[in-house]
Amino acid sequence: MSRWEPNTRVRLLDAALDLFGGRGYDSVTVAEIAERAGLTKRTFFRHFTDKREVLFAGQEALSRIFAEAITAVPASASPMEAVAAALAAAAAPFGPQRRERAKQVQAVVAGHSDLRERELLKHATLTAAMAGALRERGVPAPAASLAAEIGGLAFTTGFARWIEPGNEREFAELAREALDELVAATATLG
Amino acid sequence: MSRWEPNTRVRLLDAALDLFGGRGYDSVTVAEIAERAGLTKRTFFRHFTDKREVLFAGQEALSRIFAEAITAVPASASPMEAVAAALAAAAAPFGPQRRERAKQVQAVVAGHSDLRERELLKHATLTAAMAGALRERGVPAPAASLAAEIGGLAFTTGFARWIEPGNEREFAELAREALDELVAATATLG
Repeated sequence: MSRWEPNTRVRLLDAALDLFGGRGYDSVTVAEIAERAGLTKRTFFRHFTDKREVLFAGQEALSRIFAEAITAVPASASPMEAVAAALAAAAAPFGPQRRERAKQVQAVVAGHSDLRERELLKHATLTAAMAGALRERGVPAPAASLAAEIGGLAFTTGFARWIEPGNEREFAELAREALDELVAATATLG
Repeated sequence: MSRWEPNTRVRLLDAALDLFGGRGYDSVTVAEIAERAGLTKRTFFRHFTDKREVLFAGQEALSRIFAEAITAVPASASPMEAVAAALAAAAAPFGPQRRERAKQVQAVVAGHSDLRERELLKHATLTAAMAGALRERGVPAPAASLAAEIGGLAFTTGFARWIEPGNEREFAELAREALDELVAATATLG
C-alpha cells in the first residue's frame, strides 16, 4: 500500500457519509461516491469491494493494531494486560477528531440489517485477531479466546460510550474503564 | 406455528443437504429443494426467507431454549449456573441422531463466506438471547454480557468437538466440559 492510500480511503468514506446523510444509504451508488471524492470508480474498487465496505474502512487496520500491540507487550504481561495494551493502542485511530465521523458511520450501520451483520463479522475478525496474537504468546486456547472476547466486549462498550451524545471523554479511557468493569465481573459469575 | 411445521423444516433441510451434497450449494435452487422435499416453493418460503436460512433451521428455536432455561433456574443460581442450564437444555436438539446432519450443515457453511457470516450473526443472536435472559434475572450488564459470551464460546467449542470425526460423546457433556475449562481460565487472565 502506498503512503497515499489511507488518505484516499478516508476521502471515500467522507464522500460516502455526505451522500448517505443527504439521501440515505440505499440509493447512493459507488460511482457517485467516487465522483464526490474527486476520484474514479476504478480507484474506489482498488480500496473497497463494495459500498458496504467503505463504512468499515478502518477495521482491518484496527485488527492489525490490536494484534501488534498484544505481540509487543513484555513476555511477563498477563493476558488481560496484553488486551489492555491492545485497547490503549486504539487511542490514535479513535482520536477526538474521528468521533463525529464514527457517529455518522454508526447511524448508517444501525439502520440496515445487512450492515449490522457486516459489523458483527468485523467484530468477530477483531476478536479472532486478538485471540490469535494471545495464542502466539503461549496463552492456552480457552484463556486466549476468553481474554479476546472480554477485549471485544470492552471495545464495543467503550465505543458505544465514546459516541454517546455529550460524551467528552476519550475512547481509550472509556475502553479501559469497560475492561476493568468486565474483569471485576469475572469474580461475580459463580 | 402448527405442530406439523418443525417436521416440514427438517424435511426441507434434509432435501437441501441431499442436493448441496450432490451438486454443491451454489447451483441448487429453492424450487429444487422444495420439489425434493415433496413440497411447494410457496411452502418453502413460509418457513425460510432464502436458501441460506434453511441451513440455520434450528437456530431461532435454540435461542428460545437457551433463554427459557436461564429464566427457569432458581433465583439463587449464579450466572454461570444459569448458563450451564442453558447448555444442558441443548441436549435434546443436539441428540446423537442429529450429529450427521449437523456435520453436513457445517461442511456446507465452512465452504462459503456468506454462510460463515450468517453463522456469526446467528451466534451473536444466541449470545444476545442469553445476555438478555441473564439481565432479566437481575444480573448486572457487564456480568450478563460476559457470562453470555462464555456460554457462546462453550457452545462453539462443544459443538466443534461434538462433530469431530470419531467423537462418540454427547453434545451436552462436551459443552459442559468446555464451559468448565473457560471458567477455570477466568482465574488465569491476570
